[in-house]
Amino acid sequence: MTARMALWALLLEYDGTPFVGWQRQAQGLSVQQVLEEAAARLAGAPVGVAVAGRTDAGVHAAGQVAAVELPAHLPARQVRDALNYHMKPHPVVVLAAAPVPAGWHPRFSALERRYRYRILDRRARPALLAGRVWHHPAALDTILMAQAALPLLGRHDFTSFRAAACQAASPIRTLDRLAVTRAGEIVTIEAVARSFLHHQVRNLVGTLALVGCGRWPPERAAEALAARDRSAAGPTAPAAGLTLEAVRYAEDPFAAG
Amino acid sequence: MTARMALWALLLEYDGTPFVGWQRQAQGLSVQQVLEEAAARLAGAPVGVAVAGRTDAGVHAAGQVAAVELPAHLPARQVRDALNYHMKPHPVVVLAAAPVPAGWHPRFSALERRYRYRILDRRARPALLAGRVWHHPAALDTILMAQAALPLLGRHDFTSFRAAACQAASPIRTLDRLAVTRAGEIVTIEAVARSFLHHQVRNLVGTLALVGCGRWPPERAAEALAARDRSAAGPTAPAAGLTLEAVRYAEDPFAAG
Repeated sequence: MTARMALWALLLEYDGTPFVGWQRQAQGLSVQQVLEEAAARLAGAPVGVAVAGRTDAGVHAAGQVAAVELPAHLPARQVRDALNYHMKPHPVVVLAAAPVPAGWHPRFSALERRYRYRILDRRARPALLAGRVWHHPAALDTILMAQAALPLLGRHDFTSFRAAACQAASPIRTLDRLAVTRAGEIVTIEAVARSFLHHQVRNLVGTLALVGCGRWPPERAAEALAARDRSAAGPTAPAAGLTLEAVRYAEDPFAAG
Repeated sequence: MTARMALWALLLEYDGTPFVGWQRQAQGLSVQQVLEEAAARLAGAPVGVAVAGRTDAGVHAAGQVAAVELPAHLPARQVRDALNYHMKPHPVVVLAAAPVPAGWHPRFSALERRYRYRILDRRARPALLAGRVWHHPAALDTILMAQAALPLLGRHDFTSFRAAACQAASPIRTLDRLAVTRAGEIVTIEAVARSFLHHQVRNLVGTLALVGCGRWPPERAAEALAARDRSAAGPTAPAAGLTLEAVRYAEDPFAAG
């Protein structure tokens, strides 16, 4: 007898450091593999997992969303706890699990993604935040960075901030938020959009950092955007500083939890 | 020719996870050993390091203070950067270095220590904060914890919260602050005193957690204090949640930096 299956949404937190990224690769351990192996043990058969955002190697998640077919009759708490048990000792956990309607998709149903990028702006390398921040020893002026970020908001062709490997059909995206704030030695850049191009947030951060340390005048960020040429913008900021914070849907799948 | 030596104060950040604690042990790597070996390379001869608070294995520091004899003529930035270079790749860094008067002592000159203890109050184990928090799966009521903390403030015999191995001459301490706050899933306990007994903060936290999850009524914390008996208080909370945040002196040695 086979249990009736249902589609489950999973809210995930993970430390990206030990992984080759979300997606399965020929070599190395991926978050997807850890989750799929745990889900297979719960389902009693191999299962495939879909995800809201395929994070790169070293990128973290505090609110990634995935979907997977699992037995329909299980209580949500049991799905969460059983998956967490099977994913030990890997730094991936399910924060919440909830059944969703057939056809719901964590990627295509998403209305908004929120990323947070953290820079440690001090001379000494990080000890407590190693692997969680970009260490930038040259002092950053966040006022200039915020000034440079302003003209990047809205609907644009983001070719200059797009990885060569990006598979999106169009380079047009609408950037709803690109906020630069400071709390002591930590400079945080929050980026919000319906969706992002590959490496878009890290390329935006790499460009803003050139402005922050005085190597570029603030207006050059807008010029880089207008150039529609990757080589016109700044370098890709390191993966360690980036965290996928949240994915928003028309209805929050986890509202009941 | 030997360089003229001076006493230097060092402000330190470290991740306690990989260490046997501050102090050198027969087995395993200590923070003290990492710093003394780096200082010896800078001084060109073996040196001894004194410290404000000898943290236990797994306990972190964001503002530990140490003192060491180093060449007097060096610029402060160079002392900091050279020590950080020699301490690579260990998760210990010097945030600031400053010359201090002969006779100044990081432990005996200290007026106040501030510790922060963080509890992750949720069902799922930590992924992003692994090694930085105490994972407490049973829900905590921080109002009850704050209520239990109140009668522990002030000058008391803290025998009930003192490790058997504690070497202090007296169990009398004055607790100036024991604040319980919550930010989402993170419960933070801030403890401030001129000095603490061995394991005092972790034993206070272990006791407050019994109150927070409803196993003890709040007034039992004060009864445990009055008993002057270690077995009357709660268990020792795990080291991972504890960070030495700051040490205060009559004059801030690092004010000029």
